[in-house]
Amino acid sequence: MALIVQKYGGSSVGTIDRIRNVGRRLMETQSAGNQVVAVVSAMSGVTDKLIGMARQVMDNPPEREMDMLVSTGEQQSVALLCMAIADMGGKAVSFTGGQAGICTYGSHTRGRIESISPQRIIDALRSGYIVVCAGFQGMTPDGEIHTLGRGGSDLSAIALAAAVKADLCQIYTDVDGVYTCDPRVVKDARKITVLSYEEMLEMASSGSKVMQARSVELAKKFGVIFEVRNSMNNNPGTIVQEENPAMESLAVRGVSIERNQARVTVSSITAPVAYTAIILTALADAEINIDMIVANTAHDGKARQSFTMNMNELGAAQAALKKVLPQLGPEARLDTEAGLAKLSVVGVGMRSNSGVAATVFRALADAGIHTGMIATSEIRISTTVEASDIEKAARVVHAAFHLEKEA
Amino acid sequence: MALIVQKYGGSSVGTIDRIRNVGRRLMETQSAGNQVVAVVSAMSGVTDKLIGMARQVMDNPPEREMDMLVSTGEQQSVALLCMAIADMGGKAVSFTGGQAGICTYGSHTRGRIESISPQRIIDALRSGYIVVCAGFQGMTPDGEIHTLGRGGSDLSAIALAAAVKADLCQIYTDVDGVYTCDPRVVKDARKITVLSYEEMLEMASSGSKVMQARSVELAKKFGVIFEVRNSMNNNPGTIVQEENPAMESLAVRGVSIERNQARVTVSSITAPVAYTAIILTALADAEINIDMIVANTAHDGKARQSFTMNMNELGAAQAALKKVLPQLGPEARLDTEAGLAKLSVVGVGMRSNSGVAATVFRALADAGIHTGMIATSEIRISTTVEASDIEKAARVVHAAFHLEKEA
Repeated sequence: MALIVQKYGGSSVGTIDRIRNVGRRLMETQSAGNQVVAVVSAMSGVTDKLIGMARQVMDNPPEREMDMLVSTGEQQSVALLCMAIADMGGKAVSFTGGQAGICTYGSHTRGRIESISPQRIIDALRSGYIVVCAGFQGMTPDGEIHTLGRGGSDLSAIALAAAVKADLCQIYTDVDGVYTCDPRVVKDARKITVLSYEEMLEMASSGSKVMQARSVELAKKFGVIFEVRNSMNNNPGTIVQEENPAMESLAVRGVSIERNQARVTVSSITAPVAYTAIILTALADAEINIDMIVANTAHDGKARQSFTMNMNELGAAQAALKKVLPQLGPEARLDTEAGLAKLSVVGVGMRSNSGVAATVFRALADAGIHTGMIATSEIRISTTVEASDIEKAARVVHAAFHLEKEA
Repeated sequence: MALIVQKYGGSSVGTIDRIRNVGRRLMETQSAGNQVVAVVSAMSGVTDKLIGMARQVMDNPPEREMDMLVSTGEQQSVALLCMAIADMGGKAVSFTGGQAGICTYGSHTRGRIESISPQRIIDALRSGYIVVCAGFQGMTPDGEIHTLGRGGSDLSAIALAAAVKADLCQIYTDVDGVYTCDPRVVKDARKITVLSYEEMLEMASSGSKVMQARSVELAKKFGVIFEVRNSMNNNPGTIVQEENPAMESLAVRGVSIERNQARVTVSSITAPVAYTAIILTALADAEINIDMIVANTAHDGKARQSFTMNMNELGAAQAALKKVLPQLGPEARLDTEAGLAKLSVVGVGMRSNSGVAATVFRALADAGIHTGMIATSEIRISTTVEASDIEKAARVVHAAFHLEKEA
């Protein structure tokens, strides 16, 4: 007998029929001899509708009251799911985040999980119940309701899986798993069977939108093995787990693409002091998330720094940097470039396989694709390309590593 | 400075504009130098919509899950009301029933209030907040959510008013107060300024639908003075409080009418044993609420019992009594009469004013109205009349006691 946590997102419980479908899956999993904990998001559209009501009342509602309001979405879906299970003759009990023992701290609308007291869940499992927990929410020791921000239901599922020492955590979504590249771009992209946490993290941060990085980090921290799979079929998904030696045989696991990138360059910097700190502080104060950073010094001794970011943040970045430009020297200038995209190749095998970068840039050059900024981690190589080149770039790099073939 | 609890029903918060209106009232009450606790129902229609969703899932959903689902309605309205207050520059904090310290016991969907721990409310009031509590709900010591059944928000308001030792509890509704009779029936009916708890109880149980009897009973138990008033205007309402000698000067305070009544008569009872127990047990087992009971013995020694009840329960009552008829004697028979109504006159002055019953039945007789069963309490006289006579009956009795005149 295994203990399995299954997480279902908003589209998986988006209608009464889909809620029934999820209930059936949970009962099948239980009938197969497992203890089952479900973590469920609000029905798709409900959270947006609640936010819309709040915006009708005021532009910028108090975050505490937003949490009170929005947390009702999951409370409704867990209750309806338990009813669906009861209707099919099963035994289920629903818990809010607070009832599930998810203890949070931090700010409203972006609470963080402090700890989980799973005794109530464990008792219900022992009594034969399917336990249905509201995702995306928790409660402080003072009894304040918190929501957990974007990707919060995944986070709830991973954290609960850690707390109840689940054998497996299944993240149900509307795709079959993690692919070697976006199948809409690369036709012969293949579902990846197994990934390490690090690879999943690099893919999450480089454009594969299946899961937020913080959920993967939590899984890694507590060694929670999880599987990304499709709630609409029974296909096996992608298992994400601790790295093992077998994974290194493959240099590259997948190719991620991220569109809507922009670059800002500050050049002719002559300030003798810590200009990097000035620039990064200005961007951080404006709450701009920068991605790649490239810094160098030209032959004339003047420094130059470039950053990439999402296109939406370009205007704010320009404004923030204009203010500090005078501190960077009398000639310091600002240039921007929009219309970029980012291509990344990811794989733990990169550590022990030399020549990965050479293969990437050879493939791109042979296809006549111009590359811009380059950034690397131990298991990832990223480069910017023109937005119009990104699909072609993904296809040639995917082909260069033969990712269409079963590993 | 007074501490005032204000309760707003679903229609008072039925739209975003109405929520703003309630917010404005709360802020005005606070600005006048008071501490303010609001108790709020779900926006009108929301509870029914949630029940409808549950019924889409299954006919008879588990009551625990119904409470999880339905309690979200009030949680949403309290959050939205706090946002409206924030938008107008005020300071408000919302609490679920559990957060407000409303501790419940009993069954799901009809929980009962065990106690209230108001410390969190008191702290928030001291910090200058308007406290907005979800009505109709509470939490068990185990953290289970309960709803309180029909009239539950009134009950929450009265109980909270008792717990925080409020100076006044205002029950806002869509009428100006309690009237000497239904103004749709008696054109010159007058709003009653002051009523005793007992009078309010008798009026509630004899057809005046302003409040459920159990809320009035709770107010009486804890001496909570409350006022029934209209959320759409600033007219003074009806104050309900402890009886005082001045109230006795008036023999009759008001006339209540209740339509849709039916009578069941069991006659020719010859069973020598406790036939009343057999009959009442059969009705109680079928969960039929009976109202008036008349029992007597005919000149031939055969017993006869009649009961009134809501017309909707007539079929179930017949079925229940048919089963036990053989136990009541070989000739025992069952007769039913539908199409009745009930008229009641209520007033604590009745205790010390003789002749009230004579005035009632003289007025009805003079108008040619035939009366049927009669029941009395210390401060109430009720009689059944034909349904088609009830409006005329109300008018002649109202006039006989000169209730159209200011007391």
